[in-house]
Amino acid sequence: MHLSEITHPNQLHGLSIRQLEDVARQIREKHLETVATSGGHLGPGLGVVELTIALYQTLDLDRDKVTWDVGHQAYPHKLLTGRYNDFDSLRQKDGVAGYLKRSENKFDHFGAGHASTSISAALGMAMARDAKGEDFKCVAIIGDGALTGGMALEAINHAGHLPHTNLMVVLNDNEMSISPNVGAISRYLNKVRLSDPVQFLSDNLEEQFKQLPFVGESLTPEMERLKEGMKRLAVPKVGAVIEELGFKYFGPVDGHNLEELISTFKQAHKVPGPVLVHVATVKGKGYAIAEKDRVGYHAQSPFNLATGKAIPATKPKPPKYCKVFADTLTTLAENDPNIVGITAAMATGTGLDILQRKLPKQYVDVGIAEQHAITLAAGMACEGIKPVAAIYSTFLQRAYDQIIHDICIQKLPVFFCLDRAGIVGADGPTHQGMYDIAYLRCIPNIVVMAPKDEAELQRMVVTGINYNDGAIAMRYPRGNGVGVPLMEEGWEAIEIGKGEILRSGDDLLLVGYGTQVYPALQVAEILSEHGIEATVINARFVKPLDMDLIAPLAKQIGKVVTMEEGCLMGGFGSAVLEALQEQDILVPVKRFGVPDRLVDHATPDESKASLGLSSPQMAENILNTFFDSKKKEPSVVSQ
Amino acid sequence: MHLSEITHPNQLHGLSIRQLEDVARQIREKHLETVATSGGHLGPGLGVVELTIALYQTLDLDRDKVTWDVGHQAYPHKLLTGRYNDFDSLRQKDGVAGYLKRSENKFDHFGAGHASTSISAALGMAMARDAKGEDFKCVAIIGDGALTGGMALEAINHAGHLPHTNLMVVLNDNEMSISPNVGAISRYLNKVRLSDPVQFLSDNLEEQFKQLPFVGESLTPEMERLKEGMKRLAVPKVGAVIEELGFKYFGPVDGHNLEELISTFKQAHKVPGPVLVHVATVKGKGYAIAEKDRVGYHAQSPFNLATGKAIPATKPKPPKYCKVFADTLTTLAENDPNIVGITAAMATGTGLDILQRKLPKQYVDVGIAEQHAITLAAGMACEGIKPVAAIYSTFLQRAYDQIIHDICIQKLPVFFCLDRAGIVGADGPTHQGMYDIAYLRCIPNIVVMAPKDEAELQRMVVTGINYNDGAIAMRYPRGNGVGVPLMEEGWEAIEIGKGEILRSGDDLLLVGYGTQVYPALQVAEILSEHGIEATVINARFVKPLDMDLIAPLAKQIGKVVTMEEGCLMGGFGSAVLEALQEQDILVPVKRFGVPDRLVDHATPDESKASLGLSSPQMAENILNTFFDSKKKEPSVVSQ
Repeated sequence: MHLSEITHPNQLHGLSIRQLEDVARQIREKHLETVATSGGHLGPGLGVVELTIALYQTLDLDRDKVTWDVGHQAYPHKLLTGRYNDFDSLRQKDGVAGYLKRSENKFDHFGAGHASTSISAALGMAMARDAKGEDFKCVAIIGDGALTGGMALEAINHAGHLPHTNLMVVLNDNEMSISPNVGAISRYLNKVRLSDPVQFLSDNLEEQFKQLPFVGESLTPEMERLKEGMKRLAVPKVGAVIEELGFKYFGPVDGHNLEELISTFKQAHKVPGPVLVHVATVKGKGYAIAEKDRVGYHAQSPFNLATGKAIPATKPKPPKYCKVFADTLTTLAENDPNIVGITAAMATGTGLDILQRKLPKQYVDVGIAEQHAITLAAGMACEGIKPVAAIYSTFLQRAYDQIIHDICIQKLPVFFCLDRAGIVGADGPTHQGMYDIAYLRCIPNIVVMAPKDEAELQRMVVTGINYNDGAIAMRYPRGNGVGVPLMEEGWEAIEIGKGEILRSGDDLLLVGYGTQVYPALQVAEILSEHGIEATVINARFVKPLDMDLIAPLAKQIGKVVTMEEGCLMGGFGSAVLEALQEQDILVPVKRFGVPDRLVDHATPDESKASLGLSSPQMAENILNTFFDSKKKEPSVVSQ
Repeated sequence: MHLSEITHPNQLHGLSIRQLEDVARQIREKHLETVATSGGHLGPGLGVVELTIALYQTLDLDRDKVTWDVGHQAYPHKLLTGRYNDFDSLRQKDGVAGYLKRSENKFDHFGAGHASTSISAALGMAMARDAKGEDFKCVAIIGDGALTGGMALEAINHAGHLPHTNLMVVLNDNEMSISPNVGAISRYLNKVRLSDPVQFLSDNLEEQFKQLPFVGESLTPEMERLKEGMKRLAVPKVGAVIEELGFKYFGPVDGHNLEELISTFKQAHKVPGPVLVHVATVKGKGYAIAEKDRVGYHAQSPFNLATGKAIPATKPKPPKYCKVFADTLTTLAENDPNIVGITAAMATGTGLDILQRKLPKQYVDVGIAEQHAITLAAGMACEGIKPVAAIYSTFLQRAYDQIIHDICIQKLPVFFCLDRAGIVGADGPTHQGMYDIAYLRCIPNIVVMAPKDEAELQRMVVTGINYNDGAIAMRYPRGNGVGVPLMEEGWEAIEIGKGEILRSGDDLLLVGYGTQVYPALQVAEILSEHGIEATVINARFVKPLDMDLIAPLAKQIGKVVTMEEGCLMGGFGSAVLEALQEQDILVPVKRFGVPDRLVDHATPDESKASLGLSSPQMAENILNTFFDSKKKEPSVVSQ
């Protein structure tokens, strides 16, 4: 059977193991080809091909509900649920999303993008089912990495307390999150995973027997017999911690053996109450290069399938923001042992692997645990360490209360570095860094800033490290810098709350924040072609806002435009409106930013164009709003 | 030694057990007297008197660091750290705070108010200590209730992975959070707590022995002897789960036996790496009435010490908002089995205990686990249940990412009921519900509303239940309603996004939100005495804002005032500014709300006065801002 013929996962029901193995092979092929061409998540999906097939072989997906944690391992699921033919459009505008999405497909029962949510969602579905007197299975599939997220542990704690609520948790144990796992739970799982179920406790048992006062070093045949009997009793202890938490434990199961998987799932479905099936998988399975480098092949830009090498960009690009950030931080940390970089399982994503390699003692990876990361930083700050928490804008949402309650209320000097702020591209709505300006600036005792380019980012890293009068946050985008020369030395802190004027003109005041400063300059150039001369300010800080700079210019010029890459509601432009209002400056203000809607996956440029945020679009909008555009033709000089 | 003579906790070092017992007695006395007079947390502190004394007897508080989770159990700590003489000012303006506060006392090493943060903070301090090559002890004291918070589990997972980082976690196990505990972890702890260490596993062992094929129902003397030997081997299993997570386990210890506590702490201090001391305490210990009703006496209004009865208010008060909310919800839920109320360990605080008693099947308490609560609600909403998540404004900060990622991105119909929104009074900065307007309105796919009084709250409960086009949030304050008659029937939903005009006048437009609508009317009355007639709008919704109503009036009247009980940055007034800007309505706007600073504990009226938010203050401010107040005398008519 060709994979393209499978449009409904229930079609797997009739197939033999050999046929299923053939489906698995085809899924791997398509998966590899597509990611090699389009980029995307490679290792996670390849690791769960058999898991997905076996699970779906034992479920009725018209009734049963499946919740995939994170969703980046769900490409096999997508290929089995009618998206084979569209799969080439993966992560492209209007194409198949890189994560699960309820609106994309009826078998995407719960969307995700962030980790650790699946058990809560599946338990909610199970409780709803029982409340309505219905009867179907609810299954959450969660990686061992995501299990370090407190929310998953909250859910396990709750589910384990409900012996009459049928729920299956499939633990996809590949010994990794994106980075190798952190924490005691992971260590425990490894211990379980690496042991033959019978062997596991019996070793221990033999030792225990030998310690009995009347037994001594060698066992009599009777004692041997007793020990063998005890072994069988000891078997359930393999998942002892899980069983103590109220779950029936099944496993560890070889995650690439379809027969074993199917028989275990079938057995586990029969058990009432919460059940955990522990599946040992290999990230990147079936692609030798990815199996060997499981960090590097978690997610990929387009690459050559034969060599595994990334397809080089057509022209050299400026360094990525995250690399400039990490290089700068590492340089500063070399001279100050009190600087500690903290990541929540995103060593490579944030660039902090650079710090890790050079200064491992000044680097902490807490696992997928943003809440803990921030309060850990608070504790460090109390004792004179300068914690630098590098977390994506969208993931820092996980630690919102900790920012308020543990850092800002106590006015502790923690430096938040929000990577992936603004429009992120192919990852889509769950990963857009849209809300950080709004959700941070309303908190007291925090400075909020954004650099216009990678060189200014260097200075802001210094600024953040030097600032000790409370918290300070810096946002910067995913991807490459704008290409300005980096400063090799002489980084100077920027004065807190000081913006700069980049261009002068009497007709319009353009105030840009972060990534929108260069577009503001471009807009000014376009307007200039229409005879309109704009002053352009790089605001640098949304809190405190440089009203000493902005207010007199706003008053004098009389027309203000703000530009930001974030939500308009409560964002940077809103801060400008507030500040002008407070100073009784009544001038028209036009705010550019992300309106009140979700932004789907696409390239950042495509997203910006769809939001009217390309520089020509904004220029035209300004002409229409503030100037009678029809009367103003491009000036002769600029032609 | 009189308690008042102890101004430094190290003074405990020299005292005998008998003297320490006497200190304990005095702490209980002072604790009870003060809370009976001022109100405050009763049960938690009484339960840890001996724990505090014993721990401090084994620490050097000039060097060692102690982190109390939540901080509501830290009155004994306060009485031992120089605050005896000020203790009568507990929770009063400028008096001793109800929680820990770094700025209040040098022995308050970490502030709190929310649960589950202590292990992260203590670990941060421990890692800072090691990074700086220093040498002191770091101790976190956490309740078993707070241990259901995912963040605490994240911290345990991390700490258990660091065998060389000395850290002591004291588990104050009173089998309660504020309500009885939820979850598998709590059940496990109870099992451990209630078992004699040797007894615990041996029961199990006897059964296991009997199941051995060659043993049968009765044990031979030889087998008995073997079993007894095995028992001793089994002893370390008491804390098996904790040990598997990398902690050395000590306990359970009787939390009211000073000798046992001191000797256990001393022993545990000697063990390197992460250590957990499991202390069994009784909430309310020493006050029989509180020991019996551990939910009722968690926190108290002023009460009669002899009878335990609350001192009745001088005059009858209108019902509390939370009661009106819960009564209304319960009535609706009686007619709709798909309504489910969700609380995170705040059954009594939110009023949901009313729902629990009447419709236990439509009530879920997830424990202290706000993140899980919200994604559980998301799962329920997927399957046609209408989840109503009743969580305090400040605690919902814990679930910010879940609101965005699991509810709003998927546009799921979940109804958020944010109790304690606005100024909360005696609980202080950690509990102020200041940020919810700003942090919710920036998210797409959510309606955000607030009732002006308890009768409108009834209608908004209906509105929230009926709304199915995404998420909807309602905020309401702590405390009593304004005293309007409740509607016994005929609750009608309010049209989404529709405000109302409460008063008409040509001189000024006052737009109030939620609790600030009545003050707006009061301000209008005061202004009227000065001959200024204001139109007053009850906005009801900050999202969507009723600009059909506001815009023409703003344009026509030309002077706008907004009033809200929340942060000004990004708040309701900011939404009005944005909307006016979008419609090119350039009129002066004055915004009243909470400026960019923390609000300390005090009565709500005191707090409002200190912020210039009493009605007379606002009226005067308006007169000065918009009208030349000196020229306008109270009109003759109104005298």
